[in-house]
Order: sequence, then C-alpha cells, then structure tokens
Amino acid sequence: MAEKIAFLGLGSMGAAMATNLLKAGFPLTVYNRTASKAEPLRQQGATVAATPAEAVREATVVFTMVTDDKALEELTIGPEGFLAALPQGAIHASCSTVAPDTNRRLAEAHQQHGSTLVASPVFGKPDVAQAGNLWVGSSGPTEARQRLEPLQAAFGQGTYSFGDDAGAASVAKLCGNFLLGTVIEGMAEALTLAEKAGLDRVAFYEMLTSTLFNNPIYKSYGKLIAERHYQPVGAPPSIIRKDMNLVVQEAYRQGVPMPFANIIRDQLTATVALNEQDVDWASFAERVAQGAGL
Amino acid sequence: MAEKIAFLGLGSMGAAMATNLLKAGFPLTVYNRTASKAEPLRQQGATVAATPAEAVREATVVFTMVTDDKALEELTIGPEGFLAALPQGAIHASCSTVAPDTNRRLAEAHQQHGSTLVASPVFGKPDVAQAGNLWVGSSGPTEARQRLEPLQAAFGQGTYSFGDDAGAASVAKLCGNFLLGTVIEGMAEALTLAEKAGLDRVAFYEMLTSTLFNNPIYKSYGKLIAERHYQPVGAPPSIIRKDMNLVVQEAYRQGVPMPFANIIRDQLTATVALNEQDVDWASFAERVAQGAGL
Amino acid sequence: MAEKIAFLGLGSMGAAMATNLLKAGFPLTVYNRTASKAEPLRQQGATVAATPAEAVREATVVFTMVTDDKALEELTIGPEGFLAALPQGAIHASCSTVAPDTNRRLAEAHQQHGSTLVASPVFGKPDVAQAGNLWVGSSGPTEARQRLEPLQAAFGQGTYSFGDDAGAASVAKLCGNFLLGTVIEGMAEALTLAEKAGLDRVAFYEMLTSTLFNNPIYKSYGKLIAERHYQPVGAPPSIIRKDMNLVVQEAYRQGVPMPFANIIRDQLTATVALNEQDVDWASFAERVAQGAGL
Amino acid sequence: MAEKIAFLGLGSMGAAMATNLLKAGFPLTVYNRTASKAEPLRQQGATVAATPAEAVREATVVFTMVTDDKALEELTIGPEGFLAALPQGAIHASCSTVAPDTNRRLAEAHQQHGSTLVASPVFGKPDVAQAGNLWVGSSGPTEARQRLEPLQAAFGQGTYSFGDDAGAASVAKLCGNFLLGTVIEGMAEALTLAEKAGLDRVAFYEMLTSTLFNNPIYKSYGKLIAERHYQPVGAPPSIIRKDMNLVVQEAYRQGVPMPFANIIRDQLTATVALNEQDVDWASFAERVAQGAGL
Repeated sequence: MAEKIAFLGLGSMGAAMATNLLKAGFPLTVYNRTASKAEPLRQQGATVAATPAEAVREATVVFTMVTDDKALEELTIGPEGFLAALPQGAIHASCSTVAPDTNRRLAEAHQQHGSTLVASPVFGKPDVAQAGNLWVGSSGPTEARQRLEPLQAAFGQGTYSFGDDAGAASVAKLCGNFLLGTVIEGMAEALTLAEKAGLDRVAFYEMLTSTLFNNPIYKSYGKLIAERHYQPVGAPPSIIRKDMNLVVQEAYRQGVPMPFANIIRDQLTATVALNEQDVDWASFAERVAQGAGL
Repeated sequence: MAEKIAFLGLGSMGAAMATNLLKAGFPLTVYNRTASKAEPLRQQGATVAATPAEAVREATVVFTMVTDDKALEELTIGPEGFLAALPQGAIHASCSTVAPDTNRRLAEAHQQHGSTLVASPVFGKPDVAQAGNLWVGSSGPTEARQRLEPLQAAFGQGTYSFGDDAGAASVAKLCGNFLLGTVIEGMAEALTLAEKAGLDRVAFYEMLTSTLFNNPIYKSYGKLIAERHYQPVGAPPSIIRKDMNLVVQEAYRQGVPMPFANIIRDQLTATVALNEQDVDWASFAERVAQGAGL
Repeated sequence: MAEKIAFLGLGSMGAAMATNLLKAGFPLTVYNRTASKAEPLRQQGATVAATPAEAVREATVVFTMVTDDKALEELTIGPEGFLAALPQGAIHASCSTVAPDTNRRLAEAHQQHGSTLVASPVFGKPDVAQAGNLWVGSSGPTEARQRLEPLQAAFGQGTYSFGDDAGAASVAKLCGNFLLGTVIEGMAEALTLAEKAGLDRVAFYEMLTSTLFNNPIYKSYGKLIAERHYQPVGAPPSIIRKDMNLVVQEAYRQGVPMPFANIIRDQLTATVALNEQDVDWASFAERVAQGAGL
Repeated sequence: MAEKIAFLGLGSMGAAMATNLLKAGFPLTVYNRTASKAEPLRQQGATVAATPAEAVREATVVFTMVTDDKALEELTIGPEGFLAALPQGAIHASCSTVAPDTNRRLAEAHQQHGSTLVASPVFGKPDVAQAGNLWVGSSGPTEARQRLEPLQAAFGQGTYSFGDDAGAASVAKLCGNFLLGTVIEGMAEALTLAEKAGLDRVAFYEMLTSTLFNNPIYKSYGKLIAERHYQPVGAPPSIIRKDMNLVVQEAYRQGVPMPFANIIRDQLTATVALNEQDVDWASFAERVAQGAGL
C-alpha cells in the first residue's frame, strides 16, 4: 500500500522526522501553526497545508508531534481539529509525549470515527532525529502498528512494540524521560561532589564515561553538566518539566512512590522559576552546583 | 624492579584480585582474618601468613581490600597492624572503599614510616574482578602510582589517575558507587511504574537496555530488578549502605546537597532493617515495588 | 433574612456540621447519595430530599461536603446536579477539600446562573465538628461571605476570610492539610529515632507535647503515632492522599518546589498500597517505623 | 548541699543561663575562650577564670555550653581540659547539642575520674534562656540528676528526665531540633504556595498561628518566614547544620530512614554555601522562596 502522509507539528523534532519521511520517498503534506516553520520542507518538496483538516484530507497516515496534551487534543478533536476530515481507515501516529490517558481517549475518538490511533513516541534528541537514529515505541492495534513500521524506519533505527493499549507506549516514553532525568541529577551530584573535593570536573566526567558509564546518554548529557554549558538545546526545561509532571501524575494514578521523579520535577520547577533562556533541560544540574556554592 | 606482593583481605573481591596477581606471575603472600579463605590461594602457590606483619615483612607492595574504614585502620596502624613491619620504600595500595580522609590519614602515617600509600579503589563486581576487567582509580605520589600500574593491570582493564591527593581516588570511588545506586533506584521506579501501568516488566527492561541504556551496568543491575531476583550477590546491602553513608558524610564535609544520595542511603537502611539474607544490594529496588503494593 | 438551608453530603464531617446547623435553629433539608445516612438527621427534624435538585429547590444557602472534585462537580453541574434547580440569589457554601480551580470553575457556573459560590472549607476532625469547634476559611464575594458567617458559627469557632477569589480558601485548606502531614511525618521520624536509640516512645511524645509542641494538633496526631494505634479514623489514607495530590498539583501550577509535600504524598501512596483497613491517615507514620524495622 | 558552680562557654545561650544561675544566688566561676565575653558576668559578681582547669578547681558542678562535639571534648579531656582538675564527686552538666555517643564517651571518662556526667541539653532560644523559661532534658545517674534539678530551675521552667543513659537526653535534643526544622520547612512550603496562589503571606501566617498552629514555636519561627526577615539570630545556619548532621548520623547508626531530616540538612547546606551573614537558621526557608522565583 502506498501511504500518503500528513505531518502536523514542525518543531525541531517534528521537522527532522518529517524531513526524513520526505527523503525516504513518501508523499508528504505538512502543517504547522506558525507557517514559516513549514518553509524548509516545502522547498524540499512537501505540500504545505493551511489547516489541520486540509493537511489530512487525503492522508492514509497522520503523524502529530506537538508540545503537550492540550495541543494534541485541540489539534485532533478541537473545533479546528483534523479528525473530522480524516479518511476512514487512516492511522494517527501520535508521537508527542503525553499522558497515557490522553492517547487512550483519542484512540476511542478515532475508533468511533473509523480510524485508528497508534501511540508512537520517539526517544532521542533533535540531532538524533536528523540522523534517522531515533528509537520508536509503538502501541495500538496490531495491524496498524505493522503498517507504521516502514514509515517509522525513515527516522528511527528500531521500533519496539508495547501491545494493544494506546497508552502503553506513552508510559514507556515517560519512563524513558524520567530515566534521562535520573542521569542528569546523578551526574550533577557526582560531579559537584568531585569538584568540591578537589577533582577535575571534566576529567572525572571523561573517566566515568570511558568506563562504567560508557554510553551515549551519559556522554551527551554528562558533557553539558561537566562543562556547565547547556547548549545546544535539545528540549527546554519548561517542556520536560511538563513531562515530569506527567510522570508524577501517572505515578499517582498507578500508586507508585517515585522519590527520584519528585526531585527531578522540583529541580525543573526551580529552573523554570529562574527563567534562564536558551538552555537545555539538563541545566537543572545547576541547582546542585548552586546549592553547593559553585 | 621485581615486586614482591602481600595481599591482605580475601573476601570475594580481594580473592579474585589476588588470584589474578598470582596468575600474572607475581610472588604473593596473603593474609586473611578468617584463615580458611586463604586456602584456595595457597593451593595455587601463594604463601599464607599468620599475621598482617608477617605477610608484609618482605613485601615491596601491600594490597589491602577490607570491609570498612575501621578494619583498614586496624589492619594498618592498629596494635596488630602491618605498618610497623613494612620495609622502607614499600607501597600500600589501599583498595577498600573508605572515606577520603581515612586514606589521607593513613598516607601521613606511611610518610612518617618511610613508605607510601596510593589509594587504589576498583570498580566492578566479583565476576568482573575474576575476569581481570576491573577499572582502577589511583591517587597518590606519581612515582608510586606508576610503579603500581603493571600490578593493577593484572586485575584491571585500565587505571585512571586522580593526582597526588591520597583522598581523591576514594572520592571517585564513592561517586561511582553513588551512581550505581542512582541506576538501581531509577530502574526500580521506572519498571514499577511500567508494570503497574500494564507493561511487561522484563520486556520493558530489555527494550531500555537495548536502546538508550545499552550499557553493562544497566543490563546487569537492571536484570536483577526486572526479575526481582537479587542473586548472585555482588555486595550485600549492609556493605554498600556503609558506602552510601560515606557519600552522605563527604557531601556534608564538602557542602554539597545530594538528594538522590540521601534517598539511596535510606532505601538501604530499610533493606537492612528487613534483614533479607543472601541478596545483592540492588535488592533495595524492592522498597519501590513494595511501596507500590507489588 | 431567614436562611433556608440545604446540606448535601452527610459523611462524618457533613453529618456533624448539618446537625449543628439544625441545633442552631436553621430549617434544614438534607441529601445524601446513600440515603440511610440521612436518617439520624431526619429524626432530629431535618427534611430528607430524594435528589440534589429537590433538596435545593427552596434553599437560600446550599452546603456541600463531598469526597472529591469529581463528586462536587457532578453534584453541582452534572446531569443530576442541583444548580439548575437552585433559586436565584442563593449561595453555595462549598466545604469540600478540592482544587482551587474546581471552586473557581463552579463559581463561574453560579455567576451565569444568578447564584454565588463561596469556598468554605473547614479545619478539624469529625469530633471537632461535632463540638462546633471547626475553623472555617471563606473566600468569594464579600456580601455572600458575610451572609454565611452566622451559619458557619453553628459549627465553627471562627471564620477567616481570604478575599474574593473563590479558589483562595481552597489553597488555604490544602496548605493546612499539608501542614498536618508535616506534623505526622515529623513526629514519626522523631519518635522512631528516639525509640531505636533507647528512649520510651510514649514518654518522649508526652515530653514533646508538654513543652515545645504543646498544641492540640501535636497531641492528637502524636498520640496515634506514639501508641502506633491509628483509631478512631478522622479521615482514611485514601482521602488525604487525594488531598496531597491536589497540593502537589497546585505546587506544579504555581511553580513551587515542595519536597515535604512529595514525601507525604508518597508515604500515603505506600499506605494505600498496603490496604490497611479502618485506620486514620496518620497511619502513614508506620512507613517510618517499618523502614526502621520496628 | 551548697553547690559551687563553674560555667564554661559563654555564647548567647551560655551567658543567659549563667546569668540566671548567678541571679538565683549560686556562687559562680566562669570561663570563656574569648575572655571579653565574661566581662558582663564579672560585673554582676561572677569570678572569671583564665583556664578551664582554674574554673573548676573548687566546683561541685560544672556546666558546659559550647559549639560542637570537638569543642566539648577538648574542653573536657583535651590537653587543656578541665577534667583532670575537677574535684571528686563533682557533676558535669553537659548542655551542648552533641552526638549521644560523645556524652556517653565523656561519661566514661568522668566515671574513671570519680565524677559524673549528666547530659543536660536545653530547648529554647537565647531570649527564652534570658527569661528563665528553657525546657531542660536530663539523663545520667539518678542521684546526680536530682542534685542538678534546683540549678536547672534557675534557667528552666521544667526538667524532663530520660533515664540513666548519658546519651538519651542528647537524642531528645537532636529530635527536638529536627522537629523545629520540620516546622520551618513546612511553613516555608505552605506560605510560598499560598503567596504564589494569591494569598497574603503574612495574613495567612496569622490565620494559621491563631487556629491550628497556635503555638509559640510556630509563631516565632513562622514570623521570620512570613516576613522573610531572619533576625534576631537565635542560632546561625552553620551551627544547626551541624546539629542536623548529628541527626542524620544518629539515624544511620540506629537504622532509621528520615527523609525530612535529609531535606532539612541539605537546605542548611545550601544556605551556608550562599554565605548570608547575620541570619537565623530559619533563613533556610528562603531556599523554598527562591526555588519558586520569589
């Protein structure tokens, strides 16, 4: 089947994923609220739509990659949402980091409409998305999941299935972001203690990430923390603070004490309160440095 | 220079390290408080000494690997300690996980005696020690550090220097153990949330450690947590609880807030209170599972 | 003006408050989902209504005291809600512990209807309510607040105004419950440490509450903790766990790091997971005792 | 028996206590490392000694009130310590906030010397000490405790006994300071949330401390926090940070998880790192305010 793709939401992640779909040869219509962000894709051959509904009118698959639950709900089932215009049998690949229940609720709306939602969150920063090396989580009806896999391969190095529940892949994504947060806080505490005890902060980072923690996540986030320079911006503190609140709320719903998650959420709250601009969310590591008087 | 080695402290880590020194061809005298543990080494060609002093009498290098600060101090400068019997010019490779100040204090005693202490903590579990794949941290006078490197190569895959301060490598070791603790608590929270939200605990562990967290530490500790079966025992909760208290105390001395370290220490306290036998320290992950009613 | 009162929600708190309104001479119509709970009030002279709408049809003031935000919203603006039947000019005294935004949202619905909402949360346990000694918080339009004061005096020893914002008194109530939680956790940690260090748990409680913490809150909650017997039940863990989640969510919305609130919420989560029956929420103090092996 | 008193350590607490002993008619010899602080007492009739030994030579009771464990040990059994000069049968009333084991260790030294140590920590700020309204904890041999009571009455409104163990009253004191810390952090979180949600910070403080938390501790510390003005200085952050580390270490020794204690210790660490001068330790409440962007 020759899929026709609509891609809604062209932030740094969405634009990179859409570009890779285009490069892989899929016909692509794009939409973004701020139209100028669609321009680079138009130049590479994508059709630019003026509204979500227009974008999906002939689509067999709709990808969405937006900021938060509210934006996703508006885009899908709001007054200007695309669902009403979506052809029967189409698949909605919901890539945003949202609450599991949001994807579950939208999956029901799709079912009533005659279409299907597959939660399709991605793991990786914008540069990883550009390189086509994201990891993709996937949950929803089997057939729809399988239809998506060739498309996910355009921007990902592998797709992991989490079964039928449209919320399941969102849980996996939230857990993934939470674990990134534990890496950041852990490295922040370790490097701060080492520095105050007289060790060279960067040299110790290099030792750790050459030995026990020889891993791209530790290397990339660790570098920002070791050098205390939080650029380039993979995702800003305010966005991931939202994700960490989703973690904390899912923990409440499921009845799981998560002391580490609470701490990460609060570090991000304090970071947002300080209103530093143009920094990656790993900059919450500065809360540890400042608490130690560095 | 042909080094003659004494190895004091033959727990699971010490025995594996000593065995590798023997296999590498170094003349070896060993001592352990519980003499029976020396027997396997005797059978492989080591000389067994009856006291610490006897063990070091002709040594050029003394390795020590004991449980805690108090044991190390007694072994070195206590009434039955080896220092008085140690030949001038010898090196004490202090491998135990102890407070930085303990190694600093003993380094001073060595200096007065005419010998040298090099902090030489190792990173890795007993099976890694057996395979000769430990990572070794090293700090102390340059010449002594360099003399030790060929010996450390017998049980390690690499030695990292942290300069002249005898306490520095201990700081690095404490930070390393702390980071292992963050992996355990992080995985415990993530896998518990995932399980309660309906995901398969083991499958999710496998996904995480095949993608973002494709790393031996995450794989080995994660497996224990995913399967909720905490054997074999790398180190028991009581030993690492002691280490985490050293972290928390060094954080106090250096003036560093370490919320993650506090949580790990308390999880280990509760684990020791429950007095489970024959479990690895990663079993503190059960505190999260139990708090969630699993 | 002779007020005619409807009271909706006759749990242990609501029943005590309604009874005191009746004793004070106000004409009273009551409603409870489980009708049997209305019987004692009927015997004392109250009229029992079969539906929320029937209860409020001639009311000038409606009190509501229900379990959570969802119950309050259903009762007020749900398909069977009372608002449509409420006479113009009436006041809704909203006594439940709910999110500030819930009262704000309902206040708007009232305004459109031609009635007024005053947030009117109360501070105190059921026995305090029976004794007419609650503290009452109040926020909403001035005139409406003033009209309520003589009624609040039937069950309270004083009313504190928090101004026009219908959400403000809810914030105050959430902060109050949070502070009670800090008393419980604080006493739990202190008494557990004291006991394990050899002091008599109950004697130390008596000393503390005769000296620095000579205060009814410390005495009443402290007694439960000192004796490790969590009855009678003022409020069960599940209800206050919901309140603590409201605190944590309000902290998120307002951008306030609240490490103590996170801990209390998680202690209650673990307490609910253990599913102990018929215990006051102060029983989360047992999490400390158990973590210490008591 | 007519007691002759030596008082060693004339900081703001010690000076107030010594002054009250003098006013009560007891013969008093005082000593302070910085001699100028003894001058006001000399003018009121006290004898000023040049050394600890000289101060105690004819004493039947020695009070000590110094900064920390190390200072107490030096003062008592150090090279210039008073113990060697203390008459047989004398009592050492050890009033400083120290580790339980420190008082236990010194009690043994006294026993060998033929004298007795009674742990005699006091609860209250300098102004409470001046007013003679401290609460006094007391532990040690019964007879010695009883002999001290008339003296403790000079500066206290009541003495509570914790039995024979010289460490017990120190545990009680540490728990007391910990509970004060929970009041500060709790009020800081509550008032910050209230302020950011639109309530008047000071008015809400007044409401809380007129109702549920109508208690001198909440009023005095709460006032500093409500007004965000941390003077006068009862005790500086660095001193109480030391106490909180003693709490955390006693929790380790006794095997008690104390999440609240960890947080308070870390808030004080960050406060000391910021190096604000001339502020009461309650100023750690600013960590919450700053984390919320106030």
